[in-house]
Amino acid sequence: MKYSKTYKNALFDDVLPFWETHSLDTENGGYFTCLDRKGRVYDEDKFVWLQGRQAWLFSMLYNTVEKRSDWLEMAKTGIDFLEKYGRDTQGNFYFSLTCDGRPLVQPYNIFSDCFAAMAFSQYARATGNQEVGNMARLIYTNILSRKETPKGSYEKSTGNRPLKGFALPMILSNLVLELEHVLDSKEVEKTIDICVDEVMRVFLREDSNLIYEYVNPDGSLNNSFEGRLINPGHGLEAMWFMMDIGVRRNDLGLIQKAKQTILSLLDFGWDQQYGGIFYFKDAVGHPPQQLEHDQKLWWVHLEALVALVKAYEQTGCDKIWQWYEKVHEYAWSHFPDPENGEWFGYLNRQGEPHITLKGGKWKGCFHVPRALYQCWKTFERIENKENK
Amino acid sequence: MKYSKTYKNALFDDVLPFWETHSLDTENGGYFTCLDRKGRVYDEDKFVWLQGRQAWLFSMLYNTVEKRSDWLEMAKTGIDFLEKYGRDTQGNFYFSLTCDGRPLVQPYNIFSDCFAAMAFSQYARATGNQEVGNMARLIYTNILSRKETPKGSYEKSTGNRPLKGFALPMILSNLVLELEHVLDSKEVEKTIDICVDEVMRVFLREDSNLIYEYVNPDGSLNNSFEGRLINPGHGLEAMWFMMDIGVRRNDLGLIQKAKQTILSLLDFGWDQQYGGIFYFKDAVGHPPQQLEHDQKLWWVHLEALVALVKAYEQTGCDKIWQWYEKVHEYAWSHFPDPENGEWFGYLNRQGEPHITLKGGKWKGCFHVPRALYQCWKTFERIENKENK
Repeated sequence: MKYSKTYKNALFDDVLPFWETHSLDTENGGYFTCLDRKGRVYDEDKFVWLQGRQAWLFSMLYNTVEKRSDWLEMAKTGIDFLEKYGRDTQGNFYFSLTCDGRPLVQPYNIFSDCFAAMAFSQYARATGNQEVGNMARLIYTNILSRKETPKGSYEKSTGNRPLKGFALPMILSNLVLELEHVLDSKEVEKTIDICVDEVMRVFLREDSNLIYEYVNPDGSLNNSFEGRLINPGHGLEAMWFMMDIGVRRNDLGLIQKAKQTILSLLDFGWDQQYGGIFYFKDAVGHPPQQLEHDQKLWWVHLEALVALVKAYEQTGCDKIWQWYEKVHEYAWSHFPDPENGEWFGYLNRQGEPHITLKGGKWKGCFHVPRALYQCWKTFERIENKENK
Repeated sequence: MKYSKTYKNALFDDVLPFWETHSLDTENGGYFTCLDRKGRVYDEDKFVWLQGRQAWLFSMLYNTVEKRSDWLEMAKTGIDFLEKYGRDTQGNFYFSLTCDGRPLVQPYNIFSDCFAAMAFSQYARATGNQEVGNMARLIYTNILSRKETPKGSYEKSTGNRPLKGFALPMILSNLVLELEHVLDSKEVEKTIDICVDEVMRVFLREDSNLIYEYVNPDGSLNNSFEGRLINPGHGLEAMWFMMDIGVRRNDLGLIQKAKQTILSLLDFGWDQQYGGIFYFKDAVGHPPQQLEHDQKLWWVHLEALVALVKAYEQTGCDKIWQWYEKVHEYAWSHFPDPENGEWFGYLNRQGEPHITLKGGKWKGCFHVPRALYQCWKTFERIENKENK
């Protein structure tokens, strides 16, 4: 079977039906995301990241695949729920809510807002609703205004070791493209410039070709737990964002650099003994802080697949293809659950699912379908080229 | 070899020398706790919990085992460091500091204060220094004043699901005895009453005989990730605190209840497949939130050993002894590192050390030597009785 078909089938015959069947909260609106192995709801709390991400996913499918009214309905319930209950009086998005929308955890970071902005923006495109588009822009503006102090009063650092994090420029580089149709084009290009510079020149280090999660404000490395932290999956995800920007700008240098970084992140992050990509590693080999460091997470492998397919499409590089096959073999033989559908999220180092949930506080209807969609579409282009 | 001897030898020939050799910061005072497998310092940050705990440990040994000046010196460097650098202007203890005492992470909970109070109190007993004793009392008073809002402005919960936590009454039940000589005796007895009631009547549930980490303010169970959380090691540690109180008060009912709880926590927490005690479990078997839930942690097993030996001393119960032998066999064959000394902290479910540090952000000179000391002394009493 063609790769494009593998991904397309998994998306439409397995993953989307799983969420369509199990995640709808028909009483309160929004989505249940805590679904056990079989899809049964085991906890009703609503995590704003995942509400936004699912609303985004169905809006995106509506916009790019087919104008299906059931997808738009699916998106609408999340958008309505977020609009009604998602924000505090300052317009910041909470981290979590009860199933009927009462806030549980305060807006202690701005990632809730990032995923909400993505959702509102795609939904605005889907519906042509300008008000929703305005809302997306407003959330974006609010994110920028909180950029320097994203945790606000919940910041526990004293300031004696100011570090800047990779997560924000990385997510912004994707977010700004998601919001392109509601933003001024100069703002878009300027933000892309800044993000590419931060990601590829500051957090990506020339000597190691690795992406660090935190650096000093002047861009130098910091010798601390945070300063030595490498999250290969995070870097790989960023590399396909960079690849997309490279294609958009026809920037072959950026594409090549992203490709090289994919190779070195995989070299560094791959588990030689059991296969799979580690979740966290200390850059110099010191004991990591995270007890889950050697686990194999679904999103890490999916982001790796997307990065590799995109890199292969752009460069045709043999090494990239070899890595693709290796990661494909690992991911497809370990994560999908043929018995009950969807993908497991959390494997131990040995590759066995040690938590069998299909959705929880952090795993929702996002990484699996987004990656399946991305790989499907990219392989389709590759295969069409080959057939010519 | 007698059990008492096993524990005593490990304490004096292995564990204490490890920390005495490797942890002293002779330049700035205080202790390095980030020690790799061989004892080499791999990170110099100082975590206040662990500074307090190590100063406490050496003061306690000085007070209870032998008036050795090197132990007092060892305690002094931690006490001096904490006194000089540990607190913010409101008298709250930071979470972490640079090696030379600049604050890194704000006082976002009160456990730093709890361990500092324990350290100052034991050191006051060791030195007879009243000023240090006053300081211990002051810290204790501050802890009580922050008891209802322990995270202060760093609290991320909105208040829509107010839960009370097991950690505080549990730690207070031990802390108040640690501070007995600097507190009013009525205050001590009153606090013990409250803590025993909270631990044994509120957090310990009659139906399951399990200890929950969080309950509703009215004492009922809460159906949420937090509300379903069981941490068997935490419960086992609390049970030997209860056992100590039972002995002190000659409360046979409390001793029996603690013994029963030890048995049911072990029944619930034991890994039937690979042996060892799980770190976290969901009370009703839902997928847990903690990715490290199935790991085997050093402190969990050490606290279980202490609880079991004390329960055996008090009750002579066969079932307790069977469990003791089972946990002993697991712990002693998996955690000690005969090659480089001290105990590994973090085993995967299968029982292999997946992080090989001897000390880090959470593991320091505390659980291993405290448990070795407790088991040594308890076995000594048991063996003396048997010889009579």
